[in-house]
Amino acid sequence: MKLTILGCHSATPRDNKHTTSQLLDVQGKLFLIDCGEGTQLQLRKSKVKFSRIKHIFISHLHGDHFYGLIGLISTFRLLGRTAPLTIYGPKGIKEIITLQLKLAKSWTDYELFFKELDAKVSEIIYEDEVLSVRTLPLDHRVYTNGFLFTTKSVHRKIIKEAVEGLNLSPFHFQQLQEGKSIKLTDGQVIENKVLTQDPDPAKQYAFCSDTAFNKALVPHIKGVDLLYHESTFLEQHLELAAKTKHSTAKQAAKIAQNAQVKKLILGHFSNRYSDYKAFIEEAQPIFENVQLAEDLKSFSI
Amino acid sequence: MKLTILGCHSATPRDNKHTTSQLLDVQGKLFLIDCGEGTQLQLRKSKVKFSRIKHIFISHLHGDHFYGLIGLISTFRLLGRTAPLTIYGPKGIKEIITLQLKLAKSWTDYELFFKELDAKVSEIIYEDEVLSVRTLPLDHRVYTNGFLFTTKSVHRKIIKEAVEGLNLSPFHFQQLQEGKSIKLTDGQVIENKVLTQDPDPAKQYAFCSDTAFNKALVPHIKGVDLLYHESTFLEQHLELAAKTKHSTAKQAAKIAQNAQVKKLILGHFSNRYSDYKAFIEEAQPIFENVQLAEDLKSFSI
Repeated sequence: MKLTILGCHSATPRDNKHTTSQLLDVQGKLFLIDCGEGTQLQLRKSKVKFSRIKHIFISHLHGDHFYGLIGLISTFRLLGRTAPLTIYGPKGIKEIITLQLKLAKSWTDYELFFKELDAKVSEIIYEDEVLSVRTLPLDHRVYTNGFLFTTKSVHRKIIKEAVEGLNLSPFHFQQLQEGKSIKLTDGQVIENKVLTQDPDPAKQYAFCSDTAFNKALVPHIKGVDLLYHESTFLEQHLELAAKTKHSTAKQAAKIAQNAQVKKLILGHFSNRYSDYKAFIEEAQPIFENVQLAEDLKSFSI
Repeated sequence: MKLTILGCHSATPRDNKHTTSQLLDVQGKLFLIDCGEGTQLQLRKSKVKFSRIKHIFISHLHGDHFYGLIGLISTFRLLGRTAPLTIYGPKGIKEIITLQLKLAKSWTDYELFFKELDAKVSEIIYEDEVLSVRTLPLDHRVYTNGFLFTTKSVHRKIIKEAVEGLNLSPFHFQQLQEGKSIKLTDGQVIENKVLTQDPDPAKQYAFCSDTAFNKALVPHIKGVDLLYHESTFLEQHLELAAKTKHSTAKQAAKIAQNAQVKKLILGHFSNRYSDYKAFIEEAQPIFENVQLAEDLKSFSI
């Protein structure tokens, strides 16, 4: 998996400070998470072929997380998109988007599906052959979900050196990936374990924005490879964080520590701060492997 | 009046190619015309104190003319705005905006008014002591209005040299502006025409985007000081212009010529063109005083 931060700032977009959006590349499949105003411009800057996005996950209906969605949907239409697109987000998102398409007399030529969410417990909302996506109920001023992306470890890994010179067919490769032994054209049978090794372990990415400090989250994200957790504030604004149901950098670090995740990324910074080093300084004593999100920065998982 | 182009490109925003929005300063009062995605960032770049905007005019409900409106309304709230704001736009705009504010549980703390438009004839939709705003029915794929801004010539102009040494009170100045003669403290009466001259003539700005070539527009914009007319296409794409109900640069020039306006600005350029000189070359043989719109360029009226 490769995560690209398109925007990691809160509330209002500024020049070079974009509101929340992230692009997750899972073995070549692109998933968009949140879509603040101007996300389509950030996607252009990221140089990815963003018409390949087929699934968009919206955490909640505050503007800094979804005001760019209607523009992206419209741009897909203007670019001649034909592939279906599915939007996952809180109940109401379908009405907001379809009302605007209706009044503009600009229905998409591609199929547009909505999966509206209202469950208060974690549920699987997407699944294919390579990954599953599960909601992470968060504690914010409006109904909000984080998202847990888990890759599947289904295929055994073929040992390149072992199969060299065997002149295997695609069918042979499929059998090997599925853990079966194979029979060559000369009748010789080769056991699976000679030619393959165990699959890579599953990888997990947890996206958690926006939320108050919420210990109930910990069991859901136990040991994930990468956790993005919002840290709108520093501890000096702890009361404001509580009032607005956001987190501080220290609180984000505590969640990461309790959940024993492998790595933490902080983001969703309030516009009141200009120096972000303080976020690291506050989080690192509690959870060492922490980094700051940055617009257009990528992280490998 | 001073007009600042915030965006003058059509369809989809690109880096350094912003979709339609304009700011009109009339004697210190700010009026916003259309509000494509990212307009709030362009307003920041323009360095105007944009919290002073009290009236926003939306021509039609295509995304490149209003997808930035909800974000601007939200940003006004986050910046602590208290002054009322009025939105003028096609029927349906109130539902689009209020639905999003409701679902975000983010009602504005300031008063937000809507004047929804559905008339098919030109009507006055705003009037104060310095100007009036009138709709200009346009011919597009959805219900669309242009807007005609007309300043009022009500106050006679005081001749600075003539009043020097007379030690006039503010009340005297008011009487002179209203065309009255004045009585000095020593009982001397001075006739108005000795101290004043005729008011500046009214100034007119006509905004016309988006529209097919539409001769019915001509009588409404006769002799205006400045006409912004869309020219999405060049003549080589005349058929496409007709099909999508847009205009070519040549057609815009014909409207300017027929209406005998003083100056024409072209804009709403399609993304298919990279060299905009061709727009001038096409328009100028028909109407000489023509200029191109440019993002963040200002024009005095």
